[in-house]
Amino acid sequence: MIKVGIVGGTGYTGVELLRLLAGHPEVSLEVITSRSEAGMAVSELFPNLRGHVDLAFTVPDVELLASCDVVFFATPHTVAMALVPELIQRGTRVIDLSADFRLKDVALWEQWYNTPHTCPKLIEQAVYGLPEVNREQIKTAQLIAVPGCYPTATQLGFLPLIESNIIDVDHLIADTKSGVSGAGRKAAIGTLLTESSENMKAYAVAGHRHLPEIEQGLTMAAGKEVNLTFVPHLTPMIRGIHATLYGRLNQDVDLQSLFEQRYANEPFVDVLPAGSHPETRSVRGSNTCRIAVHQPQGSNTVVVLSAIDNLVKGASGQAIQNMNIMFGFEETTAINHIATLP
Amino acid sequence: MIKVGIVGGTGYTGVELLRLLAGHPEVSLEVITSRSEAGMAVSELFPNLRGHVDLAFTVPDVELLASCDVVFFATPHTVAMALVPELIQRGTRVIDLSADFRLKDVALWEQWYNTPHTCPKLIEQAVYGLPEVNREQIKTAQLIAVPGCYPTATQLGFLPLIESNIIDVDHLIADTKSGVSGAGRKAAIGTLLTESSENMKAYAVAGHRHLPEIEQGLTMAAGKEVNLTFVPHLTPMIRGIHATLYGRLNQDVDLQSLFEQRYANEPFVDVLPAGSHPETRSVRGSNTCRIAVHQPQGSNTVVVLSAIDNLVKGASGQAIQNMNIMFGFEETTAINHIATLP
Amino acid sequence: MIKVGIVGGTGYTGVELLRLLAGHPEVSLEVITSRSEAGMAVSELFPNLRGHVDLAFTVPDVELLASCDVVFFATPHTVAMALVPELIQRGTRVIDLSADFRLKDVALWEQWYNTPHTCPKLIEQAVYGLPEVNREQIKTAQLIAVPGCYPTATQLGFLPLIESNIIDVDHLIADTKSGVSGAGRKAAIGTLLTESSENMKAYAVAGHRHLPEIEQGLTMAAGKEVNLTFVPHLTPMIRGIHATLYGRLNQDVDLQSLFEQRYANEPFVDVLPAGSHPETRSVRGSNTCRIAVHQPQGSNTVVVLSAIDNLVKGASGQAIQNMNIMFGFEETTAINHIATLP
Amino acid sequence: MIKVGIVGGTGYTGVELLRLLAGHPEVSLEVITSRSEAGMAVSELFPNLRGHVDLAFTVPDVELLASCDVVFFATPHTVAMALVPELIQRGTRVIDLSADFRLKDVALWEQWYNTPHTCPKLIEQAVYGLPEVNREQIKTAQLIAVPGCYPTATQLGFLPLIESNIIDVDHLIADTKSGVSGAGRKAAIGTLLTESSENMKAYAVAGHRHLPEIEQGLTMAAGKEVNLTFVPHLTPMIRGIHATLYGRLNQDVDLQSLFEQRYANEPFVDVLPAGSHPETRSVRGSNTCRIAVHQPQGSNTVVVLSAIDNLVKGASGQAIQNMNIMFGFEETTAINHIATLP
Repeated sequence: MIKVGIVGGTGYTGVELLRLLAGHPEVSLEVITSRSEAGMAVSELFPNLRGHVDLAFTVPDVELLASCDVVFFATPHTVAMALVPELIQRGTRVIDLSADFRLKDVALWEQWYNTPHTCPKLIEQAVYGLPEVNREQIKTAQLIAVPGCYPTATQLGFLPLIESNIIDVDHLIADTKSGVSGAGRKAAIGTLLTESSENMKAYAVAGHRHLPEIEQGLTMAAGKEVNLTFVPHLTPMIRGIHATLYGRLNQDVDLQSLFEQRYANEPFVDVLPAGSHPETRSVRGSNTCRIAVHQPQGSNTVVVLSAIDNLVKGASGQAIQNMNIMFGFEETTAINHIATLP
Repeated sequence: MIKVGIVGGTGYTGVELLRLLAGHPEVSLEVITSRSEAGMAVSELFPNLRGHVDLAFTVPDVELLASCDVVFFATPHTVAMALVPELIQRGTRVIDLSADFRLKDVALWEQWYNTPHTCPKLIEQAVYGLPEVNREQIKTAQLIAVPGCYPTATQLGFLPLIESNIIDVDHLIADTKSGVSGAGRKAAIGTLLTESSENMKAYAVAGHRHLPEIEQGLTMAAGKEVNLTFVPHLTPMIRGIHATLYGRLNQDVDLQSLFEQRYANEPFVDVLPAGSHPETRSVRGSNTCRIAVHQPQGSNTVVVLSAIDNLVKGASGQAIQNMNIMFGFEETTAINHIATLP
Repeated sequence: MIKVGIVGGTGYTGVELLRLLAGHPEVSLEVITSRSEAGMAVSELFPNLRGHVDLAFTVPDVELLASCDVVFFATPHTVAMALVPELIQRGTRVIDLSADFRLKDVALWEQWYNTPHTCPKLIEQAVYGLPEVNREQIKTAQLIAVPGCYPTATQLGFLPLIESNIIDVDHLIADTKSGVSGAGRKAAIGTLLTESSENMKAYAVAGHRHLPEIEQGLTMAAGKEVNLTFVPHLTPMIRGIHATLYGRLNQDVDLQSLFEQRYANEPFVDVLPAGSHPETRSVRGSNTCRIAVHQPQGSNTVVVLSAIDNLVKGASGQAIQNMNIMFGFEETTAINHIATLP
Repeated sequence: MIKVGIVGGTGYTGVELLRLLAGHPEVSLEVITSRSEAGMAVSELFPNLRGHVDLAFTVPDVELLASCDVVFFATPHTVAMALVPELIQRGTRVIDLSADFRLKDVALWEQWYNTPHTCPKLIEQAVYGLPEVNREQIKTAQLIAVPGCYPTATQLGFLPLIESNIIDVDHLIADTKSGVSGAGRKAAIGTLLTESSENMKAYAVAGHRHLPEIEQGLTMAAGKEVNLTFVPHLTPMIRGIHATLYGRLNQDVDLQSLFEQRYANEPFVDVLPAGSHPETRSVRGSNTCRIAVHQPQGSNTVVVLSAIDNLVKGASGQAIQNMNIMFGFEETTAINHIATLP
């Protein structure tokens, strides 16, 4: 039984952490913080938790957080980097769902997030929490940077191709589609039902903060710099990311085998049979990434389809997967839900 | 460990039974039948089950079904009544999610379902599987008639008022709203996304098959005949039933206490604090019924709001709740999921 | 050709006025105001208007507004009552889509809107703009209070029954369902797609501001006080109101004929054939109210189904209908669109 | 005033033709056929047409159709090619919304549609009805093949780049997203709301019938063979196509000017300001195609975003645009609607 704290529990990744951790047999939820909602029962804000989670939000208290074995940050960027150093120093392990420790290049981080990074030395120490790449380092990590939602779906789709050095990494394309929960739980006009349902649009084509994160991961896999065109789209649904990935093959390979072998031992990556089309609903509420690979019309363009639930494998589920690995629990504990369909 | 069979596994209540039963520690799924899809892996039809359920559909085989401890029927009406007698005779217990054994009055059944009932003598023996009313009889039942979705939400909302004899039972009104999954998984124009999204409509105002079922249950609770106006509506969402119930009070009572006391020991009925409005999403994927009671503007009209997931508490979850009671398992086993929100 | 101004053009009733007025052959759009967006082209905020409306938002200017023949207020309550007196005094006619002049009883208004009414003497002069009731007074009105969305659907449904004195007006029930656009175009969490899609809930059961407005209209029709239980619901769609109305008949009448005769000459009320169920999508984007009347199971409870588009017949379309009547144009000019289906 | 007939009026392109043609001042709707619904009023099937269209469906009658000036075919493929020859011979002009006459290469058509073409000699005569390319030939055409929905959005997006010979036409990519109405009005499980809402998926990645149509159009524009990877996706909305197009630039050009100049005189193509993201809702119900062009991160990959309403510019609106050109009417007549937003 480990003691767990959550900083920033009023957003969608916060409630999703609660939904999943409430069923974890090795976890004791000790504290969940929110400055704005301090004193309110979490089940008042999130009525689905009635009868399952008895905690109330509290103002962040370093003593209390430091008494936990692990603290999750489900906060906007810049919050974690202010609190994490003290927690790490006092021996509490940290799993940060925000972007604060994802980029290894501090200057690049400061450019994309447009603010100084106040804790650059922890960046080096932080482990990028994509278990399919970094499982060994995760086991002993003190600080995990949980990958973003688009980066998870996109990297898992491209990795087999890039690691085996069979595509042109100078001209990768990721056409990605996200449900609206990716924008978080905050009052805004653009994500009202009236504005975002019955609608499809691209956004941030000029540049999205997940671009450098994806390029960093793919560059590591390639062993050389990659170049990605990344076009995200807002899709009229609550949950789900569908990444459609394009690259140019430089040799003829059995793609289906390549993918199946790469992920043969991964509990949360499911390579579909040849010819399949993964649906986001098939992973809704679950921690699975479902992938299919195509080579249409016999051309040398490969098309990878990759689907995840942005709040689970793209955030809170993956965060718990990291926790399970860090503390030696069965990796699938509490995140082995079957997607609800329909 | 009990052996479980499912007849008719290709519909939405079938896949929901599989999703829930796959996590039941006391259940061994032995067989799932479908004439049309015999030979196909269930995970091919329902990709959310990949990695969780290994069964394939088979043609119904009475021997195999009779070797089970319990068989669920997730079939259209008239299928169960053809197969159930033999299973019952051979000692297999049956939980029927269809309408075949819900109405005690055979003539009434035949009138509303417009076909002869081929198995009237089992009707008497069948127990109406609403645990909040019939828990004791369920324990020893051989044959359970699982309530319909509207009847579950409506009866749970009206029961405290009727059992305590404080409303005029001659003029009850149930204005109910259902998600589209209530119409089942079958090719039809009216439930296409193009026809049923961005739309609200009433249907079957002249008469819906759930009307006599609700009236039967409320009549039993009242000890005298009740009269209900029942207006169902099709709502543009996948899951969920919201019943808005109206009645005229004949005395002044503390309604909040009445409801809280009635359901104090019920694991799956949650009476919300005074002034609340239950949301269907707060029960999506879960077996809970959330209820609030109002008396607006101090008039003598009481308004009850009752929300369930039509596929869980309104069908498959309630069916498993019955199974748990029948076999002496903890009543909440495998159906204690937290609703996924958002 | 008349000169038209709009105060408050950044909300949904504002853009809907623009969409409809842009096609009106007798209207010259002179000015559209918005303090917050002054200087921005309206087509930048509402890209559907690109190529159709060339105006930019301006700060409200009384001189400019007073030079118009008619000014629409598409503003939150309390804005109109501050500006209208001067416009009226200078001879400009006003069509107010807000609630400022809907209630004749000032004290009641102040109680429900929780603020003093600064312009009570214009209340008396204001004409309630429901053409099906007040067409004659509208012709010569200086100031129109456009009915709310729920009040339009509900009154049109109840009027034939109440005017003919055949139902018990002490126990009327209106169970109403609205699309999310009824909440307006403002940043809020509750109406995000993530919160309001895949969900159904009642709200404001204790009391909604449209309740006194409806009771006022029905009381006038009845010639005596009426009592209404009004339960609004938020429905996961952009546009549309479906009102399901219940009353107890005190005599036996041919309801179908009653409704058809009442609305025989109304261009925007369509009584459907007996047994029908109006769908909100059948009026989406159009100014029509479609109505059906039922008497289920031969009981004495009458059920009326009434569907409108909340932004058209429930707001901007009805406002223009009033304008057409006021200025002697063909009543259907510019608001005779066919609903887009699917 | 011209006489107009419609063959196959029960699908979504049929009802959309009726919605638009009902407002055309130069059109007299003479006949609308449907074998399955003969005798039924069209407004019974499509209640939005009540009060606007008085026709009833009739069995196809060549005499009656031949008496029209123009006949629209809103039918599945192979229907038009059986009837068109006789109509053409008798001097009736034909606008075919189906795929029968879109491909100039008969063998290619037979390969993709998997059936013999019974009317190959009319293929040569048919004019591909994309006004932005073929306006002159449309004026005198006897037979128009209306482009498909994906081909319209995709070609309009690629044309400026290809006509100016600035991209590598061997490696074009079209990642396209369609609303569910693209699948037509037919009973099917895959397009039920329960299956297709809250979901995103690619489909037909191996090969879609619109691929050869697009390649044909782009090949003509390029003057040499092009190669396209075409990946369509099903998006949870009723209407709308969003095409996201990728190509590799072979020179440095002012893309914004290029697009603006190409479409400067086109009434239905709107090039958005630099940096924009067109939304499908901004063209919902309208005949406009809105386009934006991007060159993200200064790479040589160009990204074009192109949005249409699949039932209007992608089908019935474009069909009427062709009719207007053929008969010398103002090109925008009856199809100049403003999109309904929200």
